[in-house]
Amino acid sequence: MATMASLFIKTPIQSTPLPKTPRLNFSNVTPKSISYTQNPTRKPIRISCALIEPDGGQLVELVVPESERDVKKKEAMGLPQIKLSRIDLEWVHVLSEGWASPITGFMRESEFLQTLHFNSLRLGDGSVVNMSLPIVLDIDDSQKNRISGSTAVALVDSAGNPVAILNNIEIYKHNKEERIARTWGTTAPGLPYVEEAITSAGDWLIGGDLEVIEPIKYHDGLDHYRLSPSALRAEFEKRNADAVFAFQLRNPVHNGHALLMTDTRRRLLEMGYKNPVLLLHPLGGFTKADDVPLSWRMKQHQKVLEDGVLDPENTVVSIFPSPMHYAGPTEVQWHAKARINAGANFYIVGRDPAGMSHPVEKRDLYDADHGKKVLSMAPGLERLNILPFKVAAYDKTQQKMEFFDPSRSQDFLFISGTKMRTLAKNRENPPDGFMCPGGWEVLVEYYDSLATNDSGRVPVPIPA
Amino acid sequence: MATMASLFIKTPIQSTPLPKTPRLNFSNVTPKSISYTQNPTRKPIRISCALIEPDGGQLVELVVPESERDVKKKEAMGLPQIKLSRIDLEWVHVLSEGWASPITGFMRESEFLQTLHFNSLRLGDGSVVNMSLPIVLDIDDSQKNRISGSTAVALVDSAGNPVAILNNIEIYKHNKEERIARTWGTTAPGLPYVEEAITSAGDWLIGGDLEVIEPIKYHDGLDHYRLSPSALRAEFEKRNADAVFAFQLRNPVHNGHALLMTDTRRRLLEMGYKNPVLLLHPLGGFTKADDVPLSWRMKQHQKVLEDGVLDPENTVVSIFPSPMHYAGPTEVQWHAKARINAGANFYIVGRDPAGMSHPVEKRDLYDADHGKKVLSMAPGLERLNILPFKVAAYDKTQQKMEFFDPSRSQDFLFISGTKMRTLAKNRENPPDGFMCPGGWEVLVEYYDSLATNDSGRVPVPIPA
Repeated sequence: MATMASLFIKTPIQSTPLPKTPRLNFSNVTPKSISYTQNPTRKPIRISCALIEPDGGQLVELVVPESERDVKKKEAMGLPQIKLSRIDLEWVHVLSEGWASPITGFMRESEFLQTLHFNSLRLGDGSVVNMSLPIVLDIDDSQKNRISGSTAVALVDSAGNPVAILNNIEIYKHNKEERIARTWGTTAPGLPYVEEAITSAGDWLIGGDLEVIEPIKYHDGLDHYRLSPSALRAEFEKRNADAVFAFQLRNPVHNGHALLMTDTRRRLLEMGYKNPVLLLHPLGGFTKADDVPLSWRMKQHQKVLEDGVLDPENTVVSIFPSPMHYAGPTEVQWHAKARINAGANFYIVGRDPAGMSHPVEKRDLYDADHGKKVLSMAPGLERLNILPFKVAAYDKTQQKMEFFDPSRSQDFLFISGTKMRTLAKNRENPPDGFMCPGGWEVLVEYYDSLATNDSGRVPVPIPA
Repeated sequence: MATMASLFIKTPIQSTPLPKTPRLNFSNVTPKSISYTQNPTRKPIRISCALIEPDGGQLVELVVPESERDVKKKEAMGLPQIKLSRIDLEWVHVLSEGWASPITGFMRESEFLQTLHFNSLRLGDGSVVNMSLPIVLDIDDSQKNRISGSTAVALVDSAGNPVAILNNIEIYKHNKEERIARTWGTTAPGLPYVEEAITSAGDWLIGGDLEVIEPIKYHDGLDHYRLSPSALRAEFEKRNADAVFAFQLRNPVHNGHALLMTDTRRRLLEMGYKNPVLLLHPLGGFTKADDVPLSWRMKQHQKVLEDGVLDPENTVVSIFPSPMHYAGPTEVQWHAKARINAGANFYIVGRDPAGMSHPVEKRDLYDADHGKKVLSMAPGLERLNILPFKVAAYDKTQQKMEFFDPSRSQDFLFISGTKMRTLAKNRENPPDGFMCPGGWEVLVEYYDSLATNDSGRVPVPIPA
């Protein structure tokens, strides 16, 4: 992985700080078809080398200073304890680094209700930020009784080590059915996040302000890829980026993705940006059992960069620590909002983002176009430039991935994720030019490892 | 009903127009416990005799001028036709009079998605109005095929008479499951509106701009109570109202309600208003089978006014034509928003507004406090003053309804809606002072009529 890590130090370090403008106000550059949401108050694009401001104006960082850690650990030892699940810990990580700025801890009821009903939070100054997924911590009756009377609790990891203190707590009812229905638009059994984290969760939620004792680490050899929003912002500034375009993914990168990312950079240069930088940002938290695990995806992404499919000079690869909800148009807002906090002012959105098959019916859970429509209308995301994904397919005449041209549709071959996985499982090769050979080998190796370990059974999620 | 009708003409008509201020900017007068939504930009209360502006600045009215009706009828005859259900017609009524201002017809997809995800619409000038319930018209595959190629359709009543033209139509998918989950926060079977209007609806929705051929009438002897927002505004101006407080109801009025309304007026006078007027505003559209039908409720309300429980001088009784969703915190926003359009700047919200029992589980569908919390945080309702309902109960020591005093809880008796219905069904009397005798007799008479007509069976809804 040394090659990937080196991506972060290839450009010369700027010794003078970048000039800062008080506030970015990029307009949305996509032609809008939804007349109701057109906002004539949006200004034309203004090129600036200052990064987009985080939501709420200031990046929230919740890890206590090193000098206070021992004191906080001791304080935690004296408090009622809540044991964190793997997903809870991922959310502590997300909150601790300010991906969810401006929220400062697990949601209290006011934030929870605004999230469920409005996908946004109104701040004290009357401004609105986007917030579409509930970031909540559940407790059961006996935990609630144990906490009773305390104003703070300690959050501990599976080994009982204190991870954080939750202050000024508020305990309120966890109506799971309503949470699920309003977040996913269905209550059908079989939603991966629901089965993993909600079905057997407690009937109460506990909100409060977090103090995280030390930076969250997973010790899986990938921690150096887990750059915080603040570290990413520093990297973009170091590289003198005047536009940052984020690409969220949880799948292997094929040449269609690469074409899209390269083309986006070209378009940004045409618009007048001098140094657009790509944030290639694979999701690192909980994913469903049949997704390719993070460690294998990172290997695959490494090969893609080594093979020169993407240019390391203007690409930053980092892991986004959030768990995955598979909540389609609701979740894509979270994916976009979190990237604003990391400094991205352009967000690439594809077909059916954060979507999956309906867990019970034979259809996709979400309309494939709703994600980008909802994103373009979402309160609190007006500052973000939404770049809809152009459909790429395998062009048989050119033997490479190319943007689909409906006037010669017979020349194109669509290779779905399912088709790709089936080929890799069967050790077959996709057509030349679909994916760089090194990247494809990683995929084949992954499916081989499954076959060896666990022949014929559905793969269980491998910790990221 | 002559007595009630006369309520509208008891105050002398103002010959000079009321002075208008360009924009009302009342602050919310309730102490807010939800710090996240406190808006310090809200100004302190400013007393003014101009009515609150409708959403979008102008009241939408979609009935074509009388001179054009024949032309429009002929035009409708030449268009593909969609037959309206009773509920569809109620929505045409709602839209035609501007209760849903600024929307100008059944929702297109952009409005539908914003409603489902954000409970609000962003207008062309960047401002936001509340809109929490989808106001949509469904069609099935064969209707869709018949319409194909047309840009307009005729909406016809059950007898085939043209009611309206829907122009510049847009047809899009009707994902019923997602609509239900996001509107009700559950997909459990047995939701009254879902069973009546969604379960067997078509798989497509058709949106567009409405031209309504003539005012919607029901010819049930109650049409004169169905005042449009514009007629209500004229009435409030005629009465020189400097505050209008709306009370939404779908149940008989007991003395606890009356106490609350009287007390609200007292508080508004204390705040400096000179002439607060109550809009007593029973819902007139679809209700569930075990609610008391509109015609009986109107008889009961009439008795309450005749008995002097409410003061006709400062009370306007009118029917709100919307059908009922029973969608709790989502629907209460609609109930409040529609009343802004009718000129109300204060809205009384009770315990569990628009709530009901969970259709499957043994609990209330919604948290009883969520309605008022969500209302106080809802985008687009910042201009409306929310008045939370104080709990009234029967005070045995005073033999009348009184605000509940927890310091002497043993003196109070809570008489639930179920208890009230059981007493009336069994021809028993509630304690003296619970409801005026004339009003109670109407209830007993209603349940008698059910027993006579349809002994032992669950009552079916009587058309409003």
